[in-house]
Amino acid sequence: MTETAATTVSAEQTGREQALTEKVLASFERTPDARLRQLMQSLTRHVHEFVREVRLTEEEWNTAIEFLTAVGHITDEKRQEFILLSDVLGASMQTILVNNPADGDATEATVFGPFFVEDAPEIPLGGDISGGAPGQPCWVEGTVVDTEGAPVPGARIEVWEADEDGFYDVQYTDDRVAGRAHLFADERGRFRFWGLTPTPYPIPHDGPVGQMLAATDRSPVRAAHLHFMVTAEHCRTLVTHIFVEGDPQIEIGDSVFGVQDSLIKRFEQQPAGTPTPDGRDLAGRTWARTRFDVVLAPAA
Amino acid sequence: MTETAATTVSAEQTGREQALTEKVLASFERTPDARLRQLMQSLTRHVHEFVREVRLTEEEWNTAIEFLTAVGHITDEKRQEFILLSDVLGASMQTILVNNPADGDATEATVFGPFFVEDAPEIPLGGDISGGAPGQPCWVEGTVVDTEGAPVPGARIEVWEADEDGFYDVQYTDDRVAGRAHLFADERGRFRFWGLTPTPYPIPHDGPVGQMLAATDRSPVRAAHLHFMVTAEHCRTLVTHIFVEGDPQIEIGDSVFGVQDSLIKRFEQQPAGTPTPDGRDLAGRTWARTRFDVVLAPAA
Repeated sequence: MTETAATTVSAEQTGREQALTEKVLASFERTPDARLRQLMQSLTRHVHEFVREVRLTEEEWNTAIEFLTAVGHITDEKRQEFILLSDVLGASMQTILVNNPADGDATEATVFGPFFVEDAPEIPLGGDISGGAPGQPCWVEGTVVDTEGAPVPGARIEVWEADEDGFYDVQYTDDRVAGRAHLFADERGRFRFWGLTPTPYPIPHDGPVGQMLAATDRSPVRAAHLHFMVTAEHCRTLVTHIFVEGDPQIEIGDSVFGVQDSLIKRFEQQPAGTPTPDGRDLAGRTWARTRFDVVLAPAA
Repeated sequence: MTETAATTVSAEQTGREQALTEKVLASFERTPDARLRQLMQSLTRHVHEFVREVRLTEEEWNTAIEFLTAVGHITDEKRQEFILLSDVLGASMQTILVNNPADGDATEATVFGPFFVEDAPEIPLGGDISGGAPGQPCWVEGTVVDTEGAPVPGARIEVWEADEDGFYDVQYTDDRVAGRAHLFADERGRFRFWGLTPTPYPIPHDGPVGQMLAATDRSPVRAAHLHFMVTAEHCRTLVTHIFVEGDPQIEIGDSVFGVQDSLIKRFEQQPAGTPTPDGRDLAGRTWARTRFDVVLAPAA
């Protein structure tokens, strides 16, 4: 796992480098908040170890400063390039893992992503989240239970997804709300709604993070997915996706490392004319259906 | 040196976290440039180890994203908050150390800082770099030699410094050039110029980096210093400062960890009326003088 430094480093040089790290660590000793002190000191150690391990050149340091500057400048209310950066380094997913340890059969969490919006419209059970966004209609149903198997009535379910062209509504040029909504599970924890069959799409890759992916021969494409956030009293909030069985991008690699085997679901394609579960008339279009049964861990 | 995580982590959980890190490392395996691959994989390992070691919460991750966003948004052509961030974490100084190993008596390097400007005016030997910037006149003289002790004739010496109010010219509201110049050593490697006696000043601390320093009870003040960059054929470029013996900020701690004992110089205060080395009439003002003999390492 460890890289061998290209150059041999003398004991005297190692001593100078370690002494500097110690000096920086000491500068944080007076931090009043113990947790902040721990964070800054751990960060300092890792930043210094990185610089020393790779023998970072001054030119590379400059490139890093320029890269971060570009990440900062492309970031605005609608574009969050720092989250993308955290995502493609797997730092977001690692944070998710750390904060969502396995708890019995509780549904696994995955990355939040930059496209959630507060106050998405409420729909009734069986309603349509698409808001007119283009894509194949997809019937999604399931139940919300706790780790004891008891239904969680009234659980709040937020769902959001990209359209078939790979765009979320916040990426549209107008202020339309589409492909997102929230609904509430019924008294037996059941839920159902119409969404769109998810399709793979690239994360925004016309910025510095996209350049980094290109330079490292990595695909910017995310495996097709549908976002969920499920909240209920006394339960740990679940932020997750479901993925589409057979999506080739799962093998190629999800660009933000969000896939968990347990989250890959079968989306059954329905020929045109197949009757819909709620009698909705799809005017001869094909559609799909899937099932996602959610298990919520208890709140910490 | 290692922090104890606040929570006990199960072997299964550790396995999931390690597996994610391995997946991210593998995603960089196809990077065509071997050096970039090494950098990205080392960065990945350290970022993941940091998240896992401190058990970073999702709220803290959010705070980090907001902090970096603020650092990005305050950064422009005149304000480089990412360099300040690297500086106050000691990452800049660690990079300097890694790239400037001790070489005989070669003068030690220190941080570059964000205030260097290309194409500063040329002055003759004995000229004045201040450009009218306020401060006590200070006569600086020395020689440039190589590690064999041979003079380096014609070495190019860039010097830059803040005025007595702690501002560099690029921080003025007009486009005046002041407190910076370049000159060339004579045929025996000697140089001399008028500058200003350096005074301590804070790094810009009205932004997110300043907030971080405040939250960690750290001084934003830099020990008083005068910047040098010395370049000559066949020699390693030297970027350094000289510091002022007796400056109390050296004990308190330079905010960017730039001080090296060998770079602390005596600045001799001269009573008003003391004759100047070049006969310059200072109209009854006090002045100071110092000596800085530079030893350049051979180019790599």
